[in-house]
Amino acid sequence: MSKFSLYPVTLDGLDIEAKREEIRAYFHNTYDIFEKIFEVLKSDEIFYQKSEPTRHPMIFYFGHTATFFINKLVYMKIIKERINSEFESIFAVGVDEMEWDDLESSRYKWPKVEDVREYRKKVRSLVDGLISSLPLTLPITQESPIWIILMGIEHERIHIETSLVLHRQMPLKNVKEVREFNICPHSSEAVKNEMIKIEGANVVLGKDKSHNLYGWDNEYGKYSQYVDDFKTSKYLVSNGEFMEFVKDGGYENEEFWDDEGRKFLKISGAKHPTFWVFENGKFRYRTLCKLIDMPLDWPVDVNALEAEAFCRYKSKKDGVFYSLPSEAEYRLIYDYAGLRDIPDFHESRANLNFYHYFSSCPVNEFGFNGIYDVVGNVWQWSRTPIFGFEGFEVHPAYDDFSVPTFDNRHALILGSSWASSGNLIMKHSRYAFRKHFPQNAGFRYVVSNSDIKIEQDVYESDELVSQYCEFQYGDAYLGVKNFAIECAKIASKFVKNYTKALDMGCATGRTTFELAKSFNKVEGIDFSARFIGVGVKLKNEGYIAFSSKTEGDLVQKKRVSIEELGYEKVKEKVSFWQGDACNLKPNFNSYDLILATNLIDRLYNPKLFLESVHNRLNNEGVLILTSPYTWQESSTKKEFWLGGYRDESGKEVKTIDTLKAILGKNFELLHVEDREFVIKETARKFQHSVAEVSVWRKK
Amino acid sequence: MSKFSLYPVTLDGLDIEAKREEIRAYFHNTYDIFEKIFEVLKSDEIFYQKSEPTRHPMIFYFGHTATFFINKLVYMKIIKERINSEFESIFAVGVDEMEWDDLESSRYKWPKVEDVREYRKKVRSLVDGLISSLPLTLPITQESPIWIILMGIEHERIHIETSLVLHRQMPLKNVKEVREFNICPHSSEAVKNEMIKIEGANVVLGKDKSHNLYGWDNEYGKYSQYVDDFKTSKYLVSNGEFMEFVKDGGYENEEFWDDEGRKFLKISGAKHPTFWVFENGKFRYRTLCKLIDMPLDWPVDVNALEAEAFCRYKSKKDGVFYSLPSEAEYRLIYDYAGLRDIPDFHESRANLNFYHYFSSCPVNEFGFNGIYDVVGNVWQWSRTPIFGFEGFEVHPAYDDFSVPTFDNRHALILGSSWASSGNLIMKHSRYAFRKHFPQNAGFRYVVSNSDIKIEQDVYESDELVSQYCEFQYGDAYLGVKNFAIECAKIASKFVKNYTKALDMGCATGRTTFELAKSFNKVEGIDFSARFIGVGVKLKNEGYIAFSSKTEGDLVQKKRVSIEELGYEKVKEKVSFWQGDACNLKPNFNSYDLILATNLIDRLYNPKLFLESVHNRLNNEGVLILTSPYTWQESSTKKEFWLGGYRDESGKEVKTIDTLKAILGKNFELLHVEDREFVIKETARKFQHSVAEVSVWRKK
Repeated sequence: MSKFSLYPVTLDGLDIEAKREEIRAYFHNTYDIFEKIFEVLKSDEIFYQKSEPTRHPMIFYFGHTATFFINKLVYMKIIKERINSEFESIFAVGVDEMEWDDLESSRYKWPKVEDVREYRKKVRSLVDGLISSLPLTLPITQESPIWIILMGIEHERIHIETSLVLHRQMPLKNVKEVREFNICPHSSEAVKNEMIKIEGANVVLGKDKSHNLYGWDNEYGKYSQYVDDFKTSKYLVSNGEFMEFVKDGGYENEEFWDDEGRKFLKISGAKHPTFWVFENGKFRYRTLCKLIDMPLDWPVDVNALEAEAFCRYKSKKDGVFYSLPSEAEYRLIYDYAGLRDIPDFHESRANLNFYHYFSSCPVNEFGFNGIYDVVGNVWQWSRTPIFGFEGFEVHPAYDDFSVPTFDNRHALILGSSWASSGNLIMKHSRYAFRKHFPQNAGFRYVVSNSDIKIEQDVYESDELVSQYCEFQYGDAYLGVKNFAIECAKIASKFVKNYTKALDMGCATGRTTFELAKSFNKVEGIDFSARFIGVGVKLKNEGYIAFSSKTEGDLVQKKRVSIEELGYEKVKEKVSFWQGDACNLKPNFNSYDLILATNLIDRLYNPKLFLESVHNRLNNEGVLILTSPYTWQESSTKKEFWLGGYRDESGKEVKTIDTLKAILGKNFELLHVEDREFVIKETARKFQHSVAEVSVWRKK
Repeated sequence: MSKFSLYPVTLDGLDIEAKREEIRAYFHNTYDIFEKIFEVLKSDEIFYQKSEPTRHPMIFYFGHTATFFINKLVYMKIIKERINSEFESIFAVGVDEMEWDDLESSRYKWPKVEDVREYRKKVRSLVDGLISSLPLTLPITQESPIWIILMGIEHERIHIETSLVLHRQMPLKNVKEVREFNICPHSSEAVKNEMIKIEGANVVLGKDKSHNLYGWDNEYGKYSQYVDDFKTSKYLVSNGEFMEFVKDGGYENEEFWDDEGRKFLKISGAKHPTFWVFENGKFRYRTLCKLIDMPLDWPVDVNALEAEAFCRYKSKKDGVFYSLPSEAEYRLIYDYAGLRDIPDFHESRANLNFYHYFSSCPVNEFGFNGIYDVVGNVWQWSRTPIFGFEGFEVHPAYDDFSVPTFDNRHALILGSSWASSGNLIMKHSRYAFRKHFPQNAGFRYVVSNSDIKIEQDVYESDELVSQYCEFQYGDAYLGVKNFAIECAKIASKFVKNYTKALDMGCATGRTTFELAKSFNKVEGIDFSARFIGVGVKLKNEGYIAFSSKTEGDLVQKKRVSIEELGYEKVKEKVSFWQGDACNLKPNFNSYDLILATNLIDRLYNPKLFLESVHNRLNNEGVLILTSPYTWQESSTKKEFWLGGYRDESGKEVKTIDTLKAILGKNFELLHVEDREFVIKETARKFQHSVAEVSVWRKK
């Protein structure tokens, strides 16, 4: 690679064939870099090691970015055939340390590295072909099938950044130096920081749908806020500047840490930043693959909790209130610096896009109008938790990219790092992590009077999830009983053993909890983490809040607690997982009951689920399906419908008959009945359906 | 104009600014030609004359093509302000001689020609501006706002063609020759026709959404049919060839005419083709503006009934069965001729696009591989009634362009004429007229064994209309009574006089009929002729047929007769009209009742309707509104919602309060109640709503 990392393609242009070639180059460049960084792992055995006990072994990430392309393309019905359904289930989810991530590695048999390499080649060739053949008009919009390719590329760029963090966390014995990955060769004494005044102004954040660069859902929309005058540090906090805090006992003094920080200290036992190594009486510094003498003028790498603790420490010392910058303040710093968005920003001007180094560099190397490292070098933690701008909408291909992070616990990181490229270095990008996560991130501090007031209860602003909360946890309408509870009741009538139940397509989880009243263990699985988050929140925080539409945009706010629902005692039996019913991981098995309420007519290929579901049931296990058979092309391509069409001879095919044909081999049909359910759209409009409930016992 | 008529723009391309200029040139060319052809009217007074008693005076058409742009742009929410709401209501509908066309001219005060000219200028300038400013990406698709501009242009091209027919029907004293409108200067003796064999083949009709030329809704989709070998006449039937039929007493001999033909003869008193004039013992020929000696070798202009009569006459004489070609047979003639679609077809090769003449020309002037006038000269009537191809979908901006013609009574015309341009001369275009309509049309005959079997009941294939038929005329579901009947019952409780009622937003007309049980006269108005057609069909044909979805694509077919509904005795009190509640023609007034069921939350600007509705009521007249207040941006831009939002002070605004505020000035609120209604989507899924019914008496 002469130029290591390419800048992302723009969405507009005039020449379609040229645009295909740009996308192709950008795709291969991304795929190449991703594979290249795995060369730091000393041998294939290392792929099965974890960098962090709470994360997957590296083989997961190695497969994950390739399966992502296939899973999204299948889900969006752009391709019909999988390449390897096993890989595409086990490498599918579990990157974010979310409640529902399945990190119990012993549950999988990880494939051979060689096989994953082969698999990656097949995906590369398939995506390359699609770049030639998919319909393409300019500008590319979110509705374009090629957007899914760009999504896969940008997703892989994120994993280039985060995998480099994981590699850097690997014990030195597991990694080797790679010639192309040049560490910055110079460092010097710590530079003295100083404060620079930034004038207040009204700040407008968010980008328009017509913007000519790829964006994730959280970037679009609009947010405006008046920001008062404030001061910002000229440099990022260097190792040298942070050293004072460490030497002054900052990690031992609880007064500098909040609850979450103290919890982090307790669990991690941290006494200093994670990439510092105390050796022979002094601190050394871990780069990607080797230990070097402490570069005092490079930025310190810390998590948000450590950064906040430093601010408290320095505030006490100086008698001035320091904090991390807010997202809006950072935009004023960006403007003050006179920065331009890529591609107009030349990459030589900052430590990013792998242009200079595969490491940090001195905090006084790249300045912009007197402020240094406004972009590049290391990310800068902010005090703003990520939230959705006004007009926020999820992208249908990746509806849980952002929403589960809108929980007040994910802090935005600003500005990008030496390992950032693609969307990560765009002006409008917004990434957020849990505060205890290590990233290629440090911080700068500000003196500011502005408060952050983001009051969000994510599910109040997520219309579809709120509608489902109302359906499962809200009031009864039109005299129809709560469907989630009724389904659980029917289930307990037909089941013989109560060891373990699966609520497949659990949505917001009401039936999962309800089943826990009779079962010893209940697993709820849903495709979307947006929905799962509700059940998890109810279990962990003891309540959920949502909004119920009344008229137009007007809503009634509702809050339900675990006590009033009566699940306090059963909640520990319940767990939620993200998964695809058409390609479920092998470890989900040995159930006495599998309940799939209103699921089959929403699957992209329901036959895949039905043909293998018996394998996951114990002897005499029961499968219960409920569905109004509302087949629609937006969910299921016509060729995969189980009914609602005429066959070649002109005969009407009904879903119940197809169910009998598919399930008949392995199940006995015990019972069929109709059950109504009502989903409230507004105070005066309801979807009123009649599901057919069919109960099947494994032969 | 150096080149009289431009070829239409293609939808694809690479240069957006260049495409804007192409569209601009094409728009002005269209607008210019349309205005130019009105120069044949001798003076402004003539604009108030009718060419045919069953049509509007010419002033209507002069205004109509300009108001079309504005009405469609307003409806599609591309512009917010009207230019002249009076013009845009009186010039809005009534071109097709449909049951619901309001042709009672005495009901309007037609504006001055000068004012309409001024109005046309304003529209020209607005559209020109939009061509510069509307968002434009290539290729242009049906969803693009610029599509509405193209729709307006192609609509005007149609009226160029049909207005030229009307001008030609004007008495000679009313018209004058225009220098640029050159009549073909040559003619000769009749040429002897002969038959040419065409080989059978499978024919596939219909174009793809991605086709690079503008299309009307009826052109898209797919239809395939095997066509047997057949023979076609080499030439169109000339005046000379048709003369035999006339001289043999063809117009007097009923055996050559079917029922519809005999009815035409009786009403029209026709003894010969409409543009023949019998003068001093011989036939002369009417061109656009003058009478000329009979050009025996030019094609005869006849309607479909005359063409069919000729075929029967010739069949009897020759002992061979002649008929008009089917649409599929014509495609084989087209292929045999080796024709290419525009823009690859050079306009010099045929008598079309005003390239050669403003009249017909000899039938042996333009040949294609031995067959003459396959395109151009005059349209050719076919024996195929227009129908929707598989996959037919209406365009939301013009949902009743085609559907009301899918009635087995509109015959397709093929091939285009000297007066055709734009979409009219495209390979895939499909136009159909009632069989008694004069057009620039003649015919060629074929000897064919193929039958035409198009069984269509339009409303069976129109999902939305069928759903509404089921709602108004179908079964009751979920125990909720028929809403259309219940609304009529409520109305009769509160009304004092029963002279005349208006069912505003009548949809498929059930309430209109129901009200006729108590009112002397009931008018049903709806925006869409697709819906009105149901009520009209019930009134005229005594039944309606529709389909009711059960599961997926499966349907149950239903048929309801006027006898079982009990409307046989009241049907004459009922009439249906097309109209826009937000810009209703002034002649709809003097009602004792105005009922608007589930209308206000579907209007683009409901306030316009509500603020003036009292003017249309008699003293003590009653207004009844029913609505579930389901405000949605797709129907009503948020700024026009009557409720369902918070005002600037944060206060919730509810629709009922806004209704009280708007209507309170002129009405007393008599009564409010809730009424449920259920719309069936499938056998297992229903929209179940609760409308608020409010009854208002005019103060």
